[in-house]
Amino acid sequence: MDTFTCIRTRREIREYLDKPIGDESLLRLLEAGRLAPSSKNSQPWQFVVIRNKETLNKIASLTPTGAHIAKALLAIAILMDGAKLPEIDGTRAIQNMVLAAWELGIGACWVTNFYEDAVKDLLGAPQRMKLVTVIPFGYPKEPKTKRNKMRKPLEEIVSYERLGEHSPK
Amino acid sequence: MDTFTCIRTRREIREYLDKPIGDESLLRLLEAGRLAPSSKNSQPWQFVVIRNKETLNKIASLTPTGAHIAKALLAIAILMDGAKLPEIDGTRAIQNMVLAAWELGIGACWVTNFYEDAVKDLLGAPQRMKLVTVIPFGYPKEPKTKRNKMRKPLEEIVSYERLGEHSPK
Repeated sequence: MDTFTCIRTRREIREYLDKPIGDESLLRLLEAGRLAPSSKNSQPWQFVVIRNKETLNKIASLTPTGAHIAKALLAIAILMDGAKLPEIDGTRAIQNMVLAAWELGIGACWVTNFYEDAVKDLLGAPQRMKLVTVIPFGYPKEPKTKRNKMRKPLEEIVSYERLGEHSPK
Repeated sequence: MDTFTCIRTRREIREYLDKPIGDESLLRLLEAGRLAPSSKNSQPWQFVVIRNKETLNKIASLTPTGAHIAKALLAIAILMDGAKLPEIDGTRAIQNMVLAAWELGIGACWVTNFYEDAVKDLLGAPQRMKLVTVIPFGYPKEPKTKRNKMRKPLEEIVSYERLGEHSPK
């Protein structure tokens, strides 16, 4: 799938089939994260692959907005160690992962709120690390839809030279 | 270009040809950002397209690490307004943009440090907004290289179920 089509068609997916993600596909996701750029190429990330159903259920209970983690057969925790810009570098890796996943027909849906200390304890991670997210992956249960994504029009979010100048000069 | 190849081959590019990026390509980059996911689909971003050479030079002087902005014919400032997670949502849009750019043969290189207040003043942005970055884009001057990216091996950054368990169970 070409890159722009992947970006254009990708959706957040919260319902997953009971179909495991094979090792080869998992490796592809991890490689996509590994190959991401980072500040000064510091690569300050640790990826924890979670397939244990009990752990997935526990993590789902440690977030008010991530119940769908319990519906997945796979999730990846992204932990940052000593990163100057943990959210930025972590997200560069994650966005690579979710796009590489989509190309393989695999969906994902970012979760933003965690009881972070408890998740880190569960994963054996030291508290000094920053948890960016635990992101579940799975083959979409939802049928493909052709409706457009709900997004603001370009005119609302693009300016030229100065904020608010919505026409190119 | 398929998505994984785009992810795999993409490099940060700091030297640009004196070849403008056409409107169609620019539109593609902006669309890639516009179509990114964001927390609760809030789309809290504003993209400011900068092609004025004087402005590019000024911005380059407002960062200790972004001299290469002055070498570009195009940069996009990503400003976040009222975002709960400005770095994360901003980076999701930017990573989409830089991948869409690479597919078109266009390079970019993230800059992390800015005198943020001064850049916002220059762009007419209110101080309440968060500047995630101003990212320069351009056709690479550097010859294509076949050397591998310098990255940590997967074994160093991937664990299974618990941090430090480097073998799948």
